[in-house]
Amino acid sequence: MGINLNNFLNYKNKDQKMGDFQDLDHLDGVSISTTSGNLYNNKRDDLVLFYFRKGANHASLYTQSKLVSENIKWNLKIKNKKIKALLVNTRNANVFTPNGFDGLRVLADDLSNELTELQKKDEDEPEKVRQKDILFACTGTIGERFPTEKIKSSIPDLIKKIKYTQNKYIWIKAAMGIMTTDQKPKLAMEECNIGNRKVKIYGIAKGSGMIFPNMATTLSFIFTDAAISSSVLRTLLKKNITNTFNAITCDGDTSTNDMVSIFATGESKNKFINNFDSSKLKDFNNSLNLVLLNLARRVAADGEGASKFITINTTNCKTEEHAKKISFSIANSPLVKTAIAGEDPNWGRIIMAIGKANVNINRNKISIKFGPYKIVEKGKISNFYNEADVAMYMKNESIDISVDLSQGKKNFTAYTMDLTKKYIDINSDYRS
Amino acid sequence: MGINLNNFLNYKNKDQKMGDFQDLDHLDGVSISTTSGNLYNNKRDDLVLFYFRKGANHASLYTQSKLVSENIKWNLKIKNKKIKALLVNTRNANVFTPNGFDGLRVLADDLSNELTELQKKDEDEPEKVRQKDILFACTGTIGERFPTEKIKSSIPDLIKKIKYTQNKYIWIKAAMGIMTTDQKPKLAMEECNIGNRKVKIYGIAKGSGMIFPNMATTLSFIFTDAAISSSVLRTLLKKNITNTFNAITCDGDTSTNDMVSIFATGESKNKFINNFDSSKLKDFNNSLNLVLLNLARRVAADGEGASKFITINTTNCKTEEHAKKISFSIANSPLVKTAIAGEDPNWGRIIMAIGKANVNINRNKISIKFGPYKIVEKGKISNFYNEADVAMYMKNESIDISVDLSQGKKNFTAYTMDLTKKYIDINSDYRS
Repeated sequence: MGINLNNFLNYKNKDQKMGDFQDLDHLDGVSISTTSGNLYNNKRDDLVLFYFRKGANHASLYTQSKLVSENIKWNLKIKNKKIKALLVNTRNANVFTPNGFDGLRVLADDLSNELTELQKKDEDEPEKVRQKDILFACTGTIGERFPTEKIKSSIPDLIKKIKYTQNKYIWIKAAMGIMTTDQKPKLAMEECNIGNRKVKIYGIAKGSGMIFPNMATTLSFIFTDAAISSSVLRTLLKKNITNTFNAITCDGDTSTNDMVSIFATGESKNKFINNFDSSKLKDFNNSLNLVLLNLARRVAADGEGASKFITINTTNCKTEEHAKKISFSIANSPLVKTAIAGEDPNWGRIIMAIGKANVNINRNKISIKFGPYKIVEKGKISNFYNEADVAMYMKNESIDISVDLSQGKKNFTAYTMDLTKKYIDINSDYRS
Repeated sequence: MGINLNNFLNYKNKDQKMGDFQDLDHLDGVSISTTSGNLYNNKRDDLVLFYFRKGANHASLYTQSKLVSENIKWNLKIKNKKIKALLVNTRNANVFTPNGFDGLRVLADDLSNELTELQKKDEDEPEKVRQKDILFACTGTIGERFPTEKIKSSIPDLIKKIKYTQNKYIWIKAAMGIMTTDQKPKLAMEECNIGNRKVKIYGIAKGSGMIFPNMATTLSFIFTDAAISSSVLRTLLKKNITNTFNAITCDGDTSTNDMVSIFATGESKNKFINNFDSSKLKDFNNSLNLVLLNLARRVAADGEGASKFITINTTNCKTEEHAKKISFSIANSPLVKTAIAGEDPNWGRIIMAIGKANVNINRNKISIKFGPYKIVEKGKISNFYNEADVAMYMKNESIDISVDLSQGKKNFTAYTMDLTKKYIDINSDYRS
């Protein structure tokens, strides 16, 4: 079902087994548990707990929406460098809820007590888990009463199911447990070195409506066993979000709940990194970018109703901002997206979208390609343009659009999907 | 078929006969002719000529796209105050055409000669018609060779069919002759006074994809028999476009060809107005606004695939820009538009769209209504909110959404339509 991105992505770790996605296994210091709180009134897992038994350094980036969810307000108050747990619920976005913030306080109180008990039971040097050691992520419908009691009554089950050793199945369960209208779980991983230590970077994400950057776009959680300070994690995340999660769009709509977080357990025992400029970070930095980009592309490819994955590469602009504006003007255009759904090489709509991007254009320098096919060269229809060839190309599952302005040296690549009747089906269904 | 806007619009001239729109009749100094140039390979009228036998003062506003059509480039070079003709073709947008500008030159040459002959034949004081007395409007597909020869060979027929006296049928033919994917012709009229002279304001317009303001949005031509200078016409048009054609959106896409023009023949013989501040203009100014608003709403209501007409009224903002940003953030949100198509009172998506508009919001002051139904009052779900009532309201053909920020005194109203599967059908059809 849907698009198998593995046909189009380049992985650094080629030896990683892959079906529809890479296989994640054990990551020291991360414990996962999932359960059904019956939030959807069925038995699907809708609650996922990530527990860091020895704590984890962390950093998070949030939506730029001016109306944010109650859990984001909660998280923004958390100032400690190490946290102990992240609880994710689906079905309810905890936005415009009369009881949502108080609900989180109730859950934090309960969960911190339960985890403190678990520490006493399992750890050599047990630590008290406090409310402020817990982060929350919420996703689902806006404006419905937050189901505090349902979630609270599931906490004992979550605690009971905590596994200290992970395998690919528990990661898939976690990735499925955070889904809403997603068709597929989204997982990615890389391994790299910090000094002579091998470290892992694992990540999961969910989409799949209300996807447009302005920062985080969707929920994504990255886990590593590297030993890196929270402030360096924050710099790494900010730097690498620009051309990954901030480069995707499904429908131009921005959620109230977007959140991308990274958690570092330090269990790989590399020499602690608390300086972003450390040369030892280079490999980690590149690998983190690959994991984020892999997940971000999966979110775009699984955008609501997607039948095609679209990459828009705008090059040789005066500024990166110009390249970004043009890429997103194309990526967010319903007319472009419906043409691609119809496998119509209607490049006139690309011209329209370039024109409306509010970037000064020298028409006589523009070149446009669909895949390898030149359509416009230096402002004129290419001599090599053959509509039949391009129409064949449009039948592919992954469509590349290249726009070259020849006005400078800056580039930006955006990722999106086509706009199909299924999008309308999903979103016009009463309260999807 | 579609939405009959007359149920929702208030007309100044209640006595005007109306079926689906008002009846236009004779307007002194405007001659119309329509024909088929076989541009669609069928017999529909696809060419419309407006001929001003004694000339007309005029003003035009054009798309803000950075890649504009060849006819807009032509028109921008025309500096004379009076023009003699406007030729409109459909099917071909004349954008990214290798031969498009030269084609217009050929047509202008031919048409000016033919009209000069007509002047000699019919006028007491014949005037030579020059190339620079002619404006062009084009709409249709981008990037296809401009059909100069087909259009040129239709000019004799257009000349032959020129009628000096108009009636409602020729206006309807003109309004239909400029249509592309529009389902309905769009016509509007008002009568008003300048001094003691009665003057008429008539207008036609076409939509219906690539509709998003940044100025003119679509083709619309306004005709009046008033005697008003071109510079005053320009000021009037600029002033009245803001809350009319610049207040509509269908899909957020901006055309390369948008054009709104006004032509004044002066045949009503009112005392010539060449000062915008003239108190005599007040009635005309109001009536012009009504005609533009009527047409603009018709364009939104007939947006591709529309099943519902949506009015979004954002009030009590700090600036009009804030009110406009919020109104358009809602109007352009695919999630809002699909929810309305599904008759789902999913007000959470309104919250999302307000949040992403990049306007600072005091959550505790927001109020939201769907029609007369209060949903959110001062940041809380209204005590009177009853989802069943609002779900019933959503079954209406015309949906009003009101957002009150209680942060200031500025307002903006935007108009749009819902997003349906039919939009996808229309736009994913190979080369619609």
